[in-house]
Amino acid sequence: MGERGNCETLVHGAGGILGQASQARADAVVVDHGQVVALGVADELRREWRPREEIDAAGLLLLPGLIDAHTHPVFARGRAEEFDWRGQGMDYLEIAARGGGIHASVAALRACDEAELVDKVAAHFRRMLAHGTTTCEAKSGYGLSLEDELKSLRAIRAAAERTGMQAHATCLAGHMIPLEHQERPEHYLDMVCEELLPEVRRQDLARAVDVFIEAGALDLAQARRYLERGRELGFALRVHADQFHDLGGTELAVQLGAESVDHLEVLSDAGLEALALGGRTYAGLLPAVPHFLRQKTDAPARRLLQAGVPYFIATDFNPGSCYTPSLFEAAHFARVRLCLSAAEALHGVTAGAAGSLGLGAHKGRLEPGYDADFLLCDLADVHHFGYGFGDNPVRQVFVGGQRIR
Amino acid sequence: MGERGNCETLVHGAGGILGQASQARADAVVVDHGQVVALGVADELRREWRPREEIDAAGLLLLPGLIDAHTHPVFARGRAEEFDWRGQGMDYLEIAARGGGIHASVAALRACDEAELVDKVAAHFRRMLAHGTTTCEAKSGYGLSLEDELKSLRAIRAAAERTGMQAHATCLAGHMIPLEHQERPEHYLDMVCEELLPEVRRQDLARAVDVFIEAGALDLAQARRYLERGRELGFALRVHADQFHDLGGTELAVQLGAESVDHLEVLSDAGLEALALGGRTYAGLLPAVPHFLRQKTDAPARRLLQAGVPYFIATDFNPGSCYTPSLFEAAHFARVRLCLSAAEALHGVTAGAAGSLGLGAHKGRLEPGYDADFLLCDLADVHHFGYGFGDNPVRQVFVGGQRIR
Repeated sequence: MGERGNCETLVHGAGGILGQASQARADAVVVDHGQVVALGVADELRREWRPREEIDAAGLLLLPGLIDAHTHPVFARGRAEEFDWRGQGMDYLEIAARGGGIHASVAALRACDEAELVDKVAAHFRRMLAHGTTTCEAKSGYGLSLEDELKSLRAIRAAAERTGMQAHATCLAGHMIPLEHQERPEHYLDMVCEELLPEVRRQDLARAVDVFIEAGALDLAQARRYLERGRELGFALRVHADQFHDLGGTELAVQLGAESVDHLEVLSDAGLEALALGGRTYAGLLPAVPHFLRQKTDAPARRLLQAGVPYFIATDFNPGSCYTPSLFEAAHFARVRLCLSAAEALHGVTAGAAGSLGLGAHKGRLEPGYDADFLLCDLADVHHFGYGFGDNPVRQVFVGGQRIR
Repeated sequence: MGERGNCETLVHGAGGILGQASQARADAVVVDHGQVVALGVADELRREWRPREEIDAAGLLLLPGLIDAHTHPVFARGRAEEFDWRGQGMDYLEIAARGGGIHASVAALRACDEAELVDKVAAHFRRMLAHGTTTCEAKSGYGLSLEDELKSLRAIRAAAERTGMQAHATCLAGHMIPLEHQERPEHYLDMVCEELLPEVRRQDLARAVDVFIEAGALDLAQARRYLERGRELGFALRVHADQFHDLGGTELAVQLGAESVDHLEVLSDAGLEALALGGRTYAGLLPAVPHFLRQKTDAPARRLLQAGVPYFIATDFNPGSCYTPSLFEAAHFARVRLCLSAAEALHGVTAGAAGSLGLGAHKGRLEPGYDADFLLCDLADVHHFGYGFGDNPVRQVFVGGQRIR
């Protein structure tokens, strides 16, 4: 028997390990320098490794840290009062047209000073971490002015540093045309394309830009201008499209090489074909949103999967149309509303989400060479992933091998 | 100024107090001998009372302890594997006909020894307490034999003592005809009516009996025999009816003076009229169940409320058709699917639920004379009650004035 290698941590006693490619039986993980270096059966691993610390997973299930690839955590307050309005029959776009919806969030964010905003984003990140989300994409988009978008993106960075959330910022200046520019939307787009996006690039405050292509938000021509400018500046592109109206947003996203196009509740056959042929743009499934908005239509998830379109599942956590910080909850809705299996749902909130953010080589799996971001969860087996709802099965959270909760 | 009265506890600093009849502004509660003795503004209350202990609610919202008036917590394991079968198109009753569904839970419970079963029920109660449920109705119904029903009811009692859950047991021997009696259901009913129910009464193991009136479960004549025997023995009556098929169960429940009839997704006009005319039988709304089962139809909640029918909202927490321990989650589904307001949803999981269990004079409100069962919750205001989902806003739980979580 050769000499044992030193390592930082051996996690043993897990009831099972999800998120590994091999189906071999494993109940233990070896971590060193923040990465997974081996998986296997604890007794065998102990013959090869000399861990400085052992962690007893005590029959809990080991999962990769979850990755939420579509969130809007930079907001000043929830819009709970609109919920009863919708219960009385008003729809999402009618509420927006009354100055509610996104515009109400814009007003609240602009009135919130930066220090307070950082506190709020940090509180949201802590809640997401408590639910097992160790990496997220985080959008601005309630600022919609030069200063307020920059403030929002700085708040993401500061809150990430404070909480340990691995946040990847996206500039969503294309969320909506702000009220003060409704008469001359091109003035807003001029500012965004000529001042804001270059400044975001210069300060390296975001890795991607995003746009909401929808009636009442940006039309296809406006979105094209915005996305082309973003691409020119070297940003990755993400797109909200086909949520309520098919405006051709998915086809545009694929054409411009976007890394994701999200919502897709009213995706057309042409849009689906574009995604399948393109092959690189991820479908972002947000199945808790139609629930929250009482929308009858869901994204055609089974058809997308059958066509081989890469996909992820995300919360769309935001103040007005989906108030949940939990990817377990999003996975539950994927199982109920999209009829995905537990394994398909798990892929959507781990490896699929990582792939959509260009993190597929380091995040989203528990395999040697991957970052040691993992969760100990009170789940009986893989079938229970996304089965329970309204409950948080996460007991411990590790990022880079360090326990943070 | 007169002499101040001694009291046990003053809870102050609450961002608001929900569940009080008066709309007066109050941020503090005085507790003595396990009951609420006064509500008001902290500074004024301190002039009248000398508390032994003060608790700073620090901007949290104060709510009455929640009451879950329909739960099935006595089970040995979840039925998560059936979830994918349903995702592939099999319905609830087809799964039951294959020996899945309730029958699978019966087999698992019978194989589980009593000590292990108590551990499991206690784990469920702890999860419910963590989500703010301080009082619950808890049904047997996966035993379906003399010994296994008694074992189930004893497990409820033991788990309640161990955890502090205020559990009110219901004997649900009428959940289904067990497989071994399918050919001669009357043999099962003979045993239940002549042996089991009198023994439950003798040992005082339950306050109510319950029956599932449904295709594949008990028919109307069987249910009538069971309920009449229960009533004769002095049990309160609760009924599952009109979930998938209208068999006249609601009318029977009202006719026999049942305290509740639950589900009601396919309630007929005649059933609704019977409830409205009867005036005493509560409608038990279980809005997370149609979600979990992908049923398109919901109970006609608005019509029931408009007709003045008393109602509660419950989880129906159980291993196969609604795997959530959270009344916040049930309230969320009541808001989304039944279009109830936040205040209506809150009533459903507090005062309404208490009323259905005969506890309306002591539980379900924060008022002088009521039991000091209350929660400190991270909610901005009443509009946020049932707004967020997949998340647990409960920070502290008090039962009879004592902090238990």
